[in-house]
Amino acid sequence: MEESMVEKKSDSSSKTSSSTEAGAEKVANSVLFPCKYASSGCEVTLPQTDKREHEELCDFRPYSCPYPATSCRWQGSLDAVMPHLVQKHKSIPTLQGEDVVILTIDINMPGEIFWLMMQSCFGFHFMLVLQKRRKYGGSHQFFAIVQLIGTEKQAEKFGYRLELNKPQHRLTWEARPCSIHENIASAIMNDGCLIFDTFVAHLFAQNGNLDIKTSWIKRFTHYDTCRAATTDMAIDGLDCNPLIEHLLLCRTVTSVLQ
Amino acid sequence: MEESMVEKKSDSSSKTSSSTEAGAEKVANSVLFPCKYASSGCEVTLPQTDKREHEELCDFRPYSCPYPATSCRWQGSLDAVMPHLVQKHKSIPTLQGEDVVILTIDINMPGEIFWLMMQSCFGFHFMLVLQKRRKYGGSHQFFAIVQLIGTEKQAEKFGYRLELNKPQHRLTWEARPCSIHENIASAIMNDGCLIFDTFVAHLFAQNGNLDIKTSWIKRFTHYDTCRAATTDMAIDGLDCNPLIEHLLLCRTVTSVLQ
Repeated sequence: MEESMVEKKSDSSSKTSSSTEAGAEKVANSVLFPCKYASSGCEVTLPQTDKREHEELCDFRPYSCPYPATSCRWQGSLDAVMPHLVQKHKSIPTLQGEDVVILTIDINMPGEIFWLMMQSCFGFHFMLVLQKRRKYGGSHQFFAIVQLIGTEKQAEKFGYRLELNKPQHRLTWEARPCSIHENIASAIMNDGCLIFDTFVAHLFAQNGNLDIKTSWIKRFTHYDTCRAATTDMAIDGLDCNPLIEHLLLCRTVTSVLQ
Repeated sequence: MEESMVEKKSDSSSKTSSSTEAGAEKVANSVLFPCKYASSGCEVTLPQTDKREHEELCDFRPYSCPYPATSCRWQGSLDAVMPHLVQKHKSIPTLQGEDVVILTIDINMPGEIFWLMMQSCFGFHFMLVLQKRRKYGGSHQFFAIVQLIGTEKQAEKFGYRLELNKPQHRLTWEARPCSIHENIASAIMNDGCLIFDTFVAHLFAQNGNLDIKTSWIKRFTHYDTCRAATTDMAIDGLDCNPLIEHLLLCRTVTSVLQ
């Protein structure tokens, strides 16, 4: 009898506490908080529970210094990134024009090193980083990573092509750049980058120097054309943007002979 | 005094022997021998000293069976290679047409394996071999090797392109095929092949299957065009053949939109 009383008590008390929690959660979710980057321009307000998730990807979150392999702790707005690079990291060579940039590297330089270059075109700045990393087993691998000094949305509007050339041979990598706002490691895991080992580097190098050509395309979509073209061998399996990108590159070549 | 006499004697005898050797060599070089492949059609005759060097590269030397990773010891004439492959190695899939062939592989198949496919176009047979090899450290690497069932001279007239595609990404390798008469290992050392590791394979694979597209071009030279075009970004550094090859590929794409 007593036991059943106890049971009843604990039963009713647990009901009360759970309904109280539900009520508190309802209240918390109805209260909207501003994003912590409101002072930088973000106008989003959202419940406490969604706040962290938004702030981790907020376009107004500060940009870190994209200069690789340094301890630079600088953070700031997107507009301040280029001035910071120019003032604090003076050694970056910058070239103008979308057509091609040649980065020449001495592939025999010892150790784990990187080469860095900026390319300015379409009113944007693109950063090309080539890293030479040691693999398990002692041999080296080269990684070419391309980033836009801009937002993820802006990065989606561009495509690039990296080329290694020697007579009768060509290795080409075509992709979209990632934004300096993205996590490089996960961007490479998801989208990859141009990766080649020392054998390929020596194959394309001349006197120990390797030229890497870069060309940029501002993408635009053309879905009707895409649908009409999806059976073509050279574009089957590609979405609209690379199709247009590829055509633009092709026309650049073709026009030379006209 | 005696010593000087001895010196004189030895001096004159060495002169006699060296002049005898020179004479013998002169006679040997004036005698011409037929190539050991004369019965197969080689009409070359040459001194004994040059015979071996010629025979190692003679176009009339027998062709070995090009089927990879087998103990097949077959040798025969070029005309007999395809009949041999069809009769003794029945499992080779063969596709017609130069435009594109898709070789789909299950990249997760365990162990060191290879995939083989024949492509027939321009009146020739081309063999595409993709090998999955274990690297030092336990990871795997893929090698795509393309061979013409033909002579080295015939191989120089062709160019091929291998493509890995996914939306907004493309990895392309353009090169000339090697002949089945060439040593594959040294051909790869000199000219390379499409090499990619498991990370790149997974990047382009869908549900564990990787598509490799192949397109072929019969090359022709056009030196005036080449000279006029050598400043263009997309062809600078390439010789005439890849220029034309690239243009043909480009025009195939461009024509889809016209």
